[in-house]
Amino acid sequence: MERPDRVAGPAVGLDIGGTKVLGVLLGADDDVLDRVRVPTRSGADGVVASAAAAVRRLTDAAGIAPVDLAGLGLGVPGVVDRAAGTVAHAVNLGIGDAPVPLGRMLRTELDSTWVSVDNDLNAAAAGAAHVLGDRADVAYLALGTGVAAGLLLDGRLRRGWLGAAGEIGHLPYDRSGPLCPCGQRGCLELYASGGSLDARWPGDGSVPAPAALFAAAATGDPRAVAVRDEFADAVAAAVRILVLTTDVERVVLGGGVREIGAPLLRAVTGALERQASASGFLASMRLADRVELAPRGVPVAAIGAALAARGTVSRWRS
Amino acid sequence: MERPDRVAGPAVGLDIGGTKVLGVLLGADDDVLDRVRVPTRSGADGVVASAAAAVRRLTDAAGIAPVDLAGLGLGVPGVVDRAAGTVAHAVNLGIGDAPVPLGRMLRTELDSTWVSVDNDLNAAAAGAAHVLGDRADVAYLALGTGVAAGLLLDGRLRRGWLGAAGEIGHLPYDRSGPLCPCGQRGCLELYASGGSLDARWPGDGSVPAPAALFAAAATGDPRAVAVRDEFADAVAAAVRILVLTTDVERVVLGGGVREIGAPLLRAVTGALERQASASGFLASMRLADRVELAPRGVPVAAIGAALAARGTVSRWRS
Repeated sequence: MERPDRVAGPAVGLDIGGTKVLGVLLGADDDVLDRVRVPTRSGADGVVASAAAAVRRLTDAAGIAPVDLAGLGLGVPGVVDRAAGTVAHAVNLGIGDAPVPLGRMLRTELDSTWVSVDNDLNAAAAGAAHVLGDRADVAYLALGTGVAAGLLLDGRLRRGWLGAAGEIGHLPYDRSGPLCPCGQRGCLELYASGGSLDARWPGDGSVPAPAALFAAAATGDPRAVAVRDEFADAVAAAVRILVLTTDVERVVLGGGVREIGAPLLRAVTGALERQASASGFLASMRLADRVELAPRGVPVAAIGAALAARGTVSRWRS
Repeated sequence: MERPDRVAGPAVGLDIGGTKVLGVLLGADDDVLDRVRVPTRSGADGVVASAAAAVRRLTDAAGIAPVDLAGLGLGVPGVVDRAAGTVAHAVNLGIGDAPVPLGRMLRTELDSTWVSVDNDLNAAAAGAAHVLGDRADVAYLALGTGVAAGLLLDGRLRRGWLGAAGEIGHLPYDRSGPLCPCGQRGCLELYASGGSLDARWPGDGSVPAPAALFAAAATGDPRAVAVRDEFADAVAAAVRILVLTTDVERVVLGGGVREIGAPLLRAVTGALERQASASGFLASMRLADRVELAPRGVPVAAIGAALAARGTVSRWRS
């Protein structure tokens, strides 16, 4: 599976989610030439068909064939074995415990030469680092149904021994808290995820729970303010875990909750500043300075997957 | 401050602690040819004089001059600016807020060419990784007065943006716990450090508190067993933080508490296994399998500092 470093020419990256595949065609300078969005079909064969459709739409529009690509990269949820090109435990994709060789299947389907497979949050970290100015040190903190991070450290993706780096959502936040589906108590994910707000602040259902909560808090509703601030404290705890463990320079807030925008950033940096005001040590860590929002409406995971496939990320392959 | 990768010839590494400087002379094959131990004098000038004395004893015994060394590396506590070769906030060394250019001072004192300065826990991680069989992925978890870690990830030291990677001792363990000197509440360091046992199980003063506690627990004293198990739970939490954030392959227990030996390892792996028995997710992370004791009586930080100076650690310089 080895490729030379940094192959020139157009590359395609796909962010394969449970409902949609986001695809980008990157030019030789890593600029986005074209984008596509196709629905995801479930199961191994469905995922491959959806991915192949996305690739073909991009290559057809560019007047090239998949085999002409300098790289084809996938970002997928679940447990990725990058060397084998397999994915397992991607429940949202209809992929279970048995590793599915997505890379090989897609290569066969497209008659192309090489497919790079990575975890979607790692791809997002690499893509966000690129879009935010070719940064070398970025944690992409995904706040969605769950909480987890992708890590680009010193210019290299940190995947880890089992491909499980960034699973901070299952660190305890309140050890006397409720039972988490993972079997532990009071996991951070139960407090800092968008999903955690579905029960706490469902709203009227017209907008996602996080948006409903922040809107209500903005009107001054004291109960909404309290729930929002507790949520922000938990997200701040996620930032603190990432920074005190890895001292990563930037923490980029992504995932569905990111759509709240500036009020989310204000709430999280406000929580970090409150905590730092009581601790010289925390203040010296400059936590609030490190946090920013993921670029809006930019498919960073698809971009990162393309960069990975082309080897733009230094030492991308472990 | 750039040096070519992997310089051959003998190298010296020093682990500069508050009471003693441990020094090693490494041969061309990175084997330990000689060791030395000298008392540490306090303050910048004292530290430089102590370090220089350790180097000269090693080089004199080998019949060479400091200038003949292929590398001279320091592992020091506190905040290290590796590029500048400075150290600050090393209270135990009598070095305060103002950065002290230890590297330049020692170079001048010894008339040698280049001195590499690193945090002592980073040096320990690199040294332990080497001694344990040239491993690429090691967290050195120091359990001493405080709790912190050095990280070697994918064969490279992870120092971080502010040189603060591994400061996990100041992540909250119990948010309703007592005030920590750092200004936060319930920091992990208050539960998982050797220092935390000084108050909880002082013993009769003939041996350090951790040794007294584990000895009493071994006799079946129920109160000692409870304190030991709470301590082990907190150390297990430190392991979990390191692994769920970075997915580091090995966690090496070091610091003063390591001297307890096998009973410490049993207590910590026991705690990890108890936690995993309730959580399929935790079980899948194989936490207990990753933990081992630092090699006994081996000055891993001095060895790692020498390897750093010589560039044996891949991409050692950031």
